[in-house]
Amino acid sequence: MQSPLIDRRLLDFLLYEVLKVESLCESERFAEHSRATFDATIELAHRLAVDKFLPHNRKSDANEPQMVDGKVVLIPEIGEAVAAYNEAGFSTALEDFERGGMQLPFVIASACDLLFAGANPGTVAYPSLARAAANLLRAHGSEAQQRRYMDPIVQGRFFGTMCLSEPQAGSSLGDIRTTAVVMPDGSYRLRGAKMWISAGDHELGDNIVHLVLARIEGAPAGVRGISLFIVPRWRLDASGNPSERNDVRLAGLNHKLGQRGSVNTFLKFGEQDDCFGELIGQPNQGLAYMFHMMNEERIAVGMGAIANGLVGYLYSLQYAKERRQGRHPDQKDASSPPVPIIEHADVRRMLLRQKLLVEGALALGLYASQLVDAEHLAEIDARREINALLELLTPIVKSWSSQYCLDANDLAIQILGGYGYTREYPVEQCWRDNRINPIHEGTNGIQALDLLGRKVMMHDGIALKVLLAKVHTSVAKAEVHASLHDVSAALRAHFERVVGVVRQLGARMASGDIRPALAHAQHVMHVLGHGVIAWMWLDMAHRATHGLESGAATDHGFYEARVAAAKAFFATELPSTEQAFRAIESDECAAYHFQAAWF
Amino acid sequence: MQSPLIDRRLLDFLLYEVLKVESLCESERFAEHSRATFDATIELAHRLAVDKFLPHNRKSDANEPQMVDGKVVLIPEIGEAVAAYNEAGFSTALEDFERGGMQLPFVIASACDLLFAGANPGTVAYPSLARAAANLLRAHGSEAQQRRYMDPIVQGRFFGTMCLSEPQAGSSLGDIRTTAVVMPDGSYRLRGAKMWISAGDHELGDNIVHLVLARIEGAPAGVRGISLFIVPRWRLDASGNPSERNDVRLAGLNHKLGQRGSVNTFLKFGEQDDCFGELIGQPNQGLAYMFHMMNEERIAVGMGAIANGLVGYLYSLQYAKERRQGRHPDQKDASSPPVPIIEHADVRRMLLRQKLLVEGALALGLYASQLVDAEHLAEIDARREINALLELLTPIVKSWSSQYCLDANDLAIQILGGYGYTREYPVEQCWRDNRINPIHEGTNGIQALDLLGRKVMMHDGIALKVLLAKVHTSVAKAEVHASLHDVSAALRAHFERVVGVVRQLGARMASGDIRPALAHAQHVMHVLGHGVIAWMWLDMAHRATHGLESGAATDHGFYEARVAAAKAFFATELPSTEQAFRAIESDECAAYHFQAAWF
Repeated sequence: MQSPLIDRRLLDFLLYEVLKVESLCESERFAEHSRATFDATIELAHRLAVDKFLPHNRKSDANEPQMVDGKVVLIPEIGEAVAAYNEAGFSTALEDFERGGMQLPFVIASACDLLFAGANPGTVAYPSLARAAANLLRAHGSEAQQRRYMDPIVQGRFFGTMCLSEPQAGSSLGDIRTTAVVMPDGSYRLRGAKMWISAGDHELGDNIVHLVLARIEGAPAGVRGISLFIVPRWRLDASGNPSERNDVRLAGLNHKLGQRGSVNTFLKFGEQDDCFGELIGQPNQGLAYMFHMMNEERIAVGMGAIANGLVGYLYSLQYAKERRQGRHPDQKDASSPPVPIIEHADVRRMLLRQKLLVEGALALGLYASQLVDAEHLAEIDARREINALLELLTPIVKSWSSQYCLDANDLAIQILGGYGYTREYPVEQCWRDNRINPIHEGTNGIQALDLLGRKVMMHDGIALKVLLAKVHTSVAKAEVHASLHDVSAALRAHFERVVGVVRQLGARMASGDIRPALAHAQHVMHVLGHGVIAWMWLDMAHRATHGLESGAATDHGFYEARVAAAKAFFATELPSTEQAFRAIESDECAAYHFQAAWF
Repeated sequence: MQSPLIDRRLLDFLLYEVLKVESLCESERFAEHSRATFDATIELAHRLAVDKFLPHNRKSDANEPQMVDGKVVLIPEIGEAVAAYNEAGFSTALEDFERGGMQLPFVIASACDLLFAGANPGTVAYPSLARAAANLLRAHGSEAQQRRYMDPIVQGRFFGTMCLSEPQAGSSLGDIRTTAVVMPDGSYRLRGAKMWISAGDHELGDNIVHLVLARIEGAPAGVRGISLFIVPRWRLDASGNPSERNDVRLAGLNHKLGQRGSVNTFLKFGEQDDCFGELIGQPNQGLAYMFHMMNEERIAVGMGAIANGLVGYLYSLQYAKERRQGRHPDQKDASSPPVPIIEHADVRRMLLRQKLLVEGALALGLYASQLVDAEHLAEIDARREINALLELLTPIVKSWSSQYCLDANDLAIQILGGYGYTREYPVEQCWRDNRINPIHEGTNGIQALDLLGRKVMMHDGIALKVLLAKVHTSVAKAEVHASLHDVSAALRAHFERVVGVVRQLGARMASGDIRPALAHAQHVMHVLGHGVIAWMWLDMAHRATHGLESGAATDHGFYEARVAAAKAFFATELPSTEQAFRAIESDECAAYHFQAAWF
């Protein structure tokens, strides 16, 4: 039976034929792994996702967390799923063997996360956030902090959160007001309020380790005066056991459009002037520590969006094959049997668009995930280039995937028609769950600013140069196949034009014309994002062409479909960049000059 | 204070300056009306909408109808609002004075409906459907049927439904299976199941008049064998009072993504073989009768979508003006005060896009509504042309508005960020409520087929010819203003290209190449829809330019904004048609040829 979460043949193709992830096993770190261990892990993740996460996805949506006597009450299936996830080892997927972890490549962990997120994005938030907190402590915490706070998270006893936003400052972290005052013993006392804190309070474990951004008294204004603190929900005694309750209060729950299973909280710190915190690392370096992790979180957000996109696509595809309704417009015989709706041109258009967007995004998400591994494994010199490319791709993975996989979910609803509009069918929840992804971890507007204002410009444009070199390598490989000649040429031309508009905007910014140049940030996201996805499709087509020449006969249809889909992306999706290119080239600036009073 | 439902200055501009609806009062039918009575009616509708419909909009979303002991339980505010609506006379807005109605032009009733739909799309469904049923009976019912079923609806005692879809046949009405058998007394007994029946069961009035499509035994297959029946929930005695319960059973409720206040039902007819029905008009003419009304319903769906679009836009606009966060990218001083987010280029882009889409759709919706009046009032010869134009515009009003006003709602969510994702703020409900509009009353895919396959081709293309003549008149008037020269030329060029692609596809269809030609239906909807909206913006700009020359100084800013917005539509929205044009011109057919097995 077809998996509701993934086309496994597609995942294998991406991992083993396009990305060739087995080559990671040549490195010392992954030497004990092989395709067999990767497959077994993915298989395990899939089984857990289907058995433990998927069944309560609708139930947790319909029964969102409640605040009862100041405590958060979740449906019991959430705790059971999280326990199974931890027990199977996914909370330590990346961790060293010697610390009890799976020591997996990031790309394999990412593929597993995709399955959990597709099955139940609300429930997977709890272990994901805990793992993210542990990762941050691993990178920046002291040895004692790692022992007292990180290890219990890794063991599944404690959970974690990221406390960044405040009610008055969601995206503008430089404006946070939570304060920290140092005590004679070197610990801190915090005071302030934090908004949008996922998994901010619950009874799943023995403790919650809040990682909190705050300002130490006298710190500089803005982002350069932000420090990072551990604030446990329960203070630990000398032996590391939770003892008395810390001064952190659950002030309220946010009631969301989707992802309702993951409790989203408003927290108050230090209302009794007794909120204990420990500084992580150096003062005023908090944002740098947080960003170290936010980059991987942004890839995770993109993968989450892709997961929702895939689930909606697969469901609507199955529906379109089974649901019979209507006839072709030239079939006049009303007594002829209705056709499956996949036969209708407009339904097929909506299915194909979903496929092109979602599978293209998946290829990019896995590619970027593998760059995380490559960055860690490479020699120092290569590392700089890989890192630059990863930095460039990260806002695209986050932003492009969340925008277009949401569009895909909308198409899935439309294919199901009236049924798609009901909560008896899963596609409307896919859309609702997915709708957070263009907002959180930096809105897509901010990602576009990051892309144009920082990533394509940084270090003399090195990231774009690395990207171009890789694109040209792909083009050179693909264009030898006559069947891929046109799309190869189109990709080359596309990126030449990208270079042109980036250069144009770079010159404007260099001359101080910063605001109007950055007003084109979304246009750049569009042309660069679509360009990168087109590149992924070209690579897939190239691998598939090899597969057609040398692969098994049973795979012939699969490879043929890959090539056809790649060409369809170039024919139907890439041309949408024309308007964005022209907008930059002609400096179309209607919105920029539209006065506030005119609205 | 700003209305949460409408910019009243804009509505006045559209009604009185662009459409000049006062000229309707020169006709006999509306001779007793004037701008004063129109304004008073709109004012009354606005007050009722704000006082009686808006306050329970969120409550009815959170407390959807329940089925208790086989009965539908609604929150009491719904019944109160409906009673107030009927009492104020809106259920008889179009009805003759002598029958106790307001005898209003359709365009004014449409403007009022816009306000009710914006305030509470779930509640307004009950009186709207009742009115639609009454209108159908007025057009096609016998005198006795009008007296016994229509009059009580008009008086607010009975309600009504439209029972078209069945579980196996949502869009494909030719495949419905509900049967009707004639009895010796000339009445019928029906048997079958109907799905997606809005307001299909409730206790708001004394009775519900279901208008049901069914097949009389022996009728031809397909749409030519469908008849229309009155099936009352309670049978009427000789004096027209509800007596015994008819054999119609509420089999279940559908749980929707939005518009939760309007109960949506699954009904079973004749499970006891005793479902009484009366034939309306002639046998096998049911679909024709139903379509007579569905055209006005399609305009109403478009207006409903526009209402949601407006409400989301106005809310996000207010939020963007009040919410302060972040600074301009060239403002380095972290201690400077944050700016209102409307100052950020990307937020402004999202506001402008909403404005262009929603206000453009509103102009078209009102224009099409006025055509309904003009059609009734015109001489026979002119009537044919007006009717053709209205037929052409109807799928655009329904489909373009529902697609792009939904896009607008998505942008409103994005502007509010995390807050937009919560149910504490209204924009997510706007989107959810609006999401049905691309689906019901004929999906947008079907509307596109209707547009290309029937409307632009019918009667030797008369509809498009009428449209082109009107567009050319607008262009000729506008291009004399130097400031509108460019946009006038752009519109002329756009429609020349529209004519070219329509001719191209028409030739293909004429040569029997029907399926691949109709596969471009969505492209035609795009180029024709955007073209029509651009035409509306040009007309608005033209009127505003007059206003700038001759209007009051206090209106200067308003008119200036109109012109700027019109130019912005041409600069930022109309260019999106380039891809659709090219797709038709080059016969891009990737989706059409993408094999089902390749998905």
